[in-house]
Amino acid sequence: MSATRYTYLGPEGTFTEAALRTLPEAATRELVPMVSVPAALDAVRSQGAAGALVPIENSVEGGVNATLDELATGGPLMIYREVLLPIAFALLVRPGTALKDVKTVTGHPVAQPQVRNWLAGHLPDALWESAASNADGARLVQEGRYDAAFAGEFAAPTYGLEPLVTGIHDAQNAATRFVLVGRPARPAAPTGADKTSVVIWLGDDHPGALLELLQEYAVRGVNLMRIESRPTGQGIGRYCFSVDCEGHITDRRVGEALMGLKRICPKVRFLGSYPRAGVDPSELPPLRHGTSDGEFSTAADWLTRCLDGRA
Amino acid sequence: MSATRYTYLGPEGTFTEAALRTLPEAATRELVPMVSVPAALDAVRSQGAAGALVPIENSVEGGVNATLDELATGGPLMIYREVLLPIAFALLVRPGTALKDVKTVTGHPVAQPQVRNWLAGHLPDALWESAASNADGARLVQEGRYDAAFAGEFAAPTYGLEPLVTGIHDAQNAATRFVLVGRPARPAAPTGADKTSVVIWLGDDHPGALLELLQEYAVRGVNLMRIESRPTGQGIGRYCFSVDCEGHITDRRVGEALMGLKRICPKVRFLGSYPRAGVDPSELPPLRHGTSDGEFSTAADWLTRCLDGRA
Amino acid sequence: MSATRYTYLGPEGTFTEAALRTLPEAATRELVPMVSVPAALDAVRSQGAAGALVPIENSVEGGVNATLDELATGGPLMIYREVLLPIAFALLVRPGTALKDVKTVTGHPVAQPQVRNWLAGHLPDALWESAASNADGARLVQEGRYDAAFAGEFAAPTYGLEPLVTGIHDAQNAATRFVLVGRPARPAAPTGADKTSVVIWLGDDHPGALLELLQEYAVRGVNLMRIESRPTGQGIGRYCFSVDCEGHITDRRVGEALMGLKRICPKVRFLGSYPRAGVDPSELPPLRHGTSDGEFSTAADWLTRCLDGRA
Amino acid sequence: MSATRYTYLGPEGTFTEAALRTLPEAATRELVPMVSVPAALDAVRSQGAAGALVPIENSVEGGVNATLDELATGGPLMIYREVLLPIAFALLVRPGTALKDVKTVTGHPVAQPQVRNWLAGHLPDALWESAASNADGARLVQEGRYDAAFAGEFAAPTYGLEPLVTGIHDAQNAATRFVLVGRPARPAAPTGADKTSVVIWLGDDHPGALLELLQEYAVRGVNLMRIESRPTGQGIGRYCFSVDCEGHITDRRVGEALMGLKRICPKVRFLGSYPRAGVDPSELPPLRHGTSDGEFSTAADWLTRCLDGRA
Repeated sequence: MSATRYTYLGPEGTFTEAALRTLPEAATRELVPMVSVPAALDAVRSQGAAGALVPIENSVEGGVNATLDELATGGPLMIYREVLLPIAFALLVRPGTALKDVKTVTGHPVAQPQVRNWLAGHLPDALWESAASNADGARLVQEGRYDAAFAGEFAAPTYGLEPLVTGIHDAQNAATRFVLVGRPARPAAPTGADKTSVVIWLGDDHPGALLELLQEYAVRGVNLMRIESRPTGQGIGRYCFSVDCEGHITDRRVGEALMGLKRICPKVRFLGSYPRAGVDPSELPPLRHGTSDGEFSTAADWLTRCLDGRA
Repeated sequence: MSATRYTYLGPEGTFTEAALRTLPEAATRELVPMVSVPAALDAVRSQGAAGALVPIENSVEGGVNATLDELATGGPLMIYREVLLPIAFALLVRPGTALKDVKTVTGHPVAQPQVRNWLAGHLPDALWESAASNADGARLVQEGRYDAAFAGEFAAPTYGLEPLVTGIHDAQNAATRFVLVGRPARPAAPTGADKTSVVIWLGDDHPGALLELLQEYAVRGVNLMRIESRPTGQGIGRYCFSVDCEGHITDRRVGEALMGLKRICPKVRFLGSYPRAGVDPSELPPLRHGTSDGEFSTAADWLTRCLDGRA
Repeated sequence: MSATRYTYLGPEGTFTEAALRTLPEAATRELVPMVSVPAALDAVRSQGAAGALVPIENSVEGGVNATLDELATGGPLMIYREVLLPIAFALLVRPGTALKDVKTVTGHPVAQPQVRNWLAGHLPDALWESAASNADGARLVQEGRYDAAFAGEFAAPTYGLEPLVTGIHDAQNAATRFVLVGRPARPAAPTGADKTSVVIWLGDDHPGALLELLQEYAVRGVNLMRIESRPTGQGIGRYCFSVDCEGHITDRRVGEALMGLKRICPKVRFLGSYPRAGVDPSELPPLRHGTSDGEFSTAADWLTRCLDGRA
Repeated sequence: MSATRYTYLGPEGTFTEAALRTLPEAATRELVPMVSVPAALDAVRSQGAAGALVPIENSVEGGVNATLDELATGGPLMIYREVLLPIAFALLVRPGTALKDVKTVTGHPVAQPQVRNWLAGHLPDALWESAASNADGARLVQEGRYDAAFAGEFAAPTYGLEPLVTGIHDAQNAATRFVLVGRPARPAAPTGADKTSVVIWLGDDHPGALLELLQEYAVRGVNLMRIESRPTGQGIGRYCFSVDCEGHITDRRVGEALMGLKRICPKVRFLGSYPRAGVDPSELPPLRHGTSDGEFSTAADWLTRCLDGRA
């Protein structure tokens, strides 16, 4: 039953699965690992799954291109949740392996730059080879092809390995952001601490277009949280922008900014409004003067009175 | 009957009367000269007149402060029409006077800088004294107090004078803009070449406030036509701004810009949307991409679809 | 000797003279009243005087057009000082006149709107006629032509009059700002609380030009203090702008902003950098981050290192 | 001798080598393939090589993170040249292999999304596995591990393979941009069609910071060509920006913009000014009014005259 199935970027034992399991509803869903982000999302598009959890941004490696590009093109999808997962690696080994025995290590190519300094300090002579995923690296250790794999500590039991060292990460505060993606539907109700994602294509050869794009947000007091350029595939120098802003599409300031973008840009794709992970609405700073829904209403009433000759 | 009465800045024989008589409906109205702009406007406020024609801007002297300030404060009024009148002075004299006989000249203080160069060239020794109005100057010449008065040529018969020289003006293209003011009511329907006037008060001590004000217009592609600062009377350094922009309050881009101003500024007074004098809508440049009512509608429909999960 | 002579907008007994006498150097100068702002300034241009004190802005009536226009056009002049004078009128009468005896009042046309409410409350039936200046009104009372004149209390002895009522002004905090004007020379050294004045002509038919002008200031963190549009005399809709900003031309942020204006505008006239009246440098808020001279220097050094391959 | 050695992202037979060989000076250099972008660049930092050619941007996959991040952090480097290489893949096979024989294909992970559609159309049942590089994939075909590899046609002879199909690419205009990187030195002289690259760190928690960054460029008429956000490694939501703009650091408008960025941002790293690949200076549109070096000079002269009292 697709309504009870969630796909995720597999295989089992990856950080994505760990992120998915932080969602309460994951307990009542069938969780299906997929070989790639496109595969996980295509299952949703084809109604084979109700949702898919995929990584979208890594605090070390940046945006996850496969996810950004799949959301920007192909059949429309929407983001309904985000999950923020602190990332720390464990060095997984077959039982009995000591650090001095580790001559070869593996892991996802993305993991390598995140543990490079640790490797240089603790295993300066070990040879690194990339695996298709962290979990796949663990499997290859299980099979004896490598001596150790960087992966999440939670992956150890699945592959009969032991965490030799834990909490490995070159950067402090390393985290990956995941999104739960579904077919387009009405966005969840605003919580007071929301985020709105869109993809925006700029017109050709208009040098000030990016500035104008940002001003559509700025003039309505809508703060940007992330902006990422992605190639459109039309050649070097042709970009679209993946943009997250504060607020919910039902907030008047956000809705007006989105309509402004829609008018001046050749194409805008709405990717959803959803709660910001780990943010308590009561701790947010106040809105800029003149941007609350109440102030929008008051101004609209005033305009009506002007039109009626009663201002 | 106030409904058939128009006041104007008198006395009879001024450029204001000449401007008023260019309006077709003036033929069927009782035209009443008033001693001052406030008096002409107060007659409208008190329902003693249906409308008042007053000068608002002179291409040499600038904004007419009395009009700007009366529209900004006091009982609300609205502009329904503008009249653009080319200004050229005649030198009015008693019959028989020759140029060499002119030792003293008079006129409205505003006229003096407009004919200064002509005076220096043709009557270098004549003594200038100001009169309360150009027409009043003509009356003083009739009474023999001065030898000549600068006034509109049309004023000559009223005061039994003759135009000795006509077409006098130091500046080319000199003109005065007049507005027909009435009590607040529904603005006239848009013509395609309209203008919208407001007065905007900025908040205190916010250095970037003027820039933000202009950006509310700019981001919606609404062009400014005139901006004039006026003191609020609260002390040096406290200003409000009288602003004319292109377009009609019923144009979506203008309405949205006005609501934006209303939200960020402590006070906005709507002074009307009315046809631009002497402009043929078919000759206007096209609107900036993304600012037409159709594009606003399309964007609003798109937002609705996003909210409904159908984008 | 012109070097010891200051002209001012006369006649004697006006607020302008009072403002001039607040300057320490006035005690050692010959102070010469002139009949008009142009006359006062022309005396400086022709080297007949070292300086001229003229009003430039009134908290009730706004910019003084004659001064703004004379500074914008004609032979170049520069502002070296400003004087801020609180304005309150006295009702001057011939000795023995009581309030109930006052049937006619006079004063400068600019004074009338500043005392309108007081008149309506205290002398509702008195007839107002304008005089060429407040001091001239006092003279006309001395001659018996009017019963009372609004003028500065200091004008009473000059004309043998008595102040019947003092401290009259409809608006609180009423003040007039005067400027001491001289021939172009090196500006005075910065004091830390300075002001820089320019006149800026915009190019034709460029709707966003005013916004661009303001951005040249804003991007360098230079706050605007006053902006006033003035007609260029080329016809309705053609303006130049008289602009005061915070800071001194020798401040790097101000100099760079002025050069930016010079590049994008067809004409910029520098009118001077001079101390702000009544402002203690120690009470000013700190400069915006990144706009101090030190930060400009640091950035210039960095650019040099980049150019040299040493960054 | 390091002065005659260029490293590049190896192994031999990759597009990077092909790009490097388009440079005339490559003929007289020792060209050394390295296993990674960091390794290629570290050889330059340690003076083991005079330069390194590395990919920086792919029209399908976007920015090359390893290159962007290595240039942003670590020992300073500068870009001296860019090379734009059209990308089309050949399907390389062992001699005698027909299309129907191809059951397994390999190539760089980045190649896969660029040939996905071609694969779906021509080899729908073939199994894809990633190789460490396109050239490495070719080697694995040579060794018999896979039936075919996507790589540049030029790689065929190196590995004893034949191009079975050429010109494969899902996207039209596919290209990769490479940069030649060296140790910091004086930038090459401007050619009239140059590009300037920087990395900019924004201050924390300042929502409008990106807009301000763009305005530093915009107000000086400097067009952006590329902007890419990269995580700083300090946690989710902390970014720096890799920015290319038109023009050379010795152009006054570019220098002033860079100094503006330096003042308002906590950190700016200059990455070089260098000729734009494939652009003829004579075909560029004219500079925006007011932004040429001549106009900068004129404005600077004017400022000096103002300071001297001679404006």
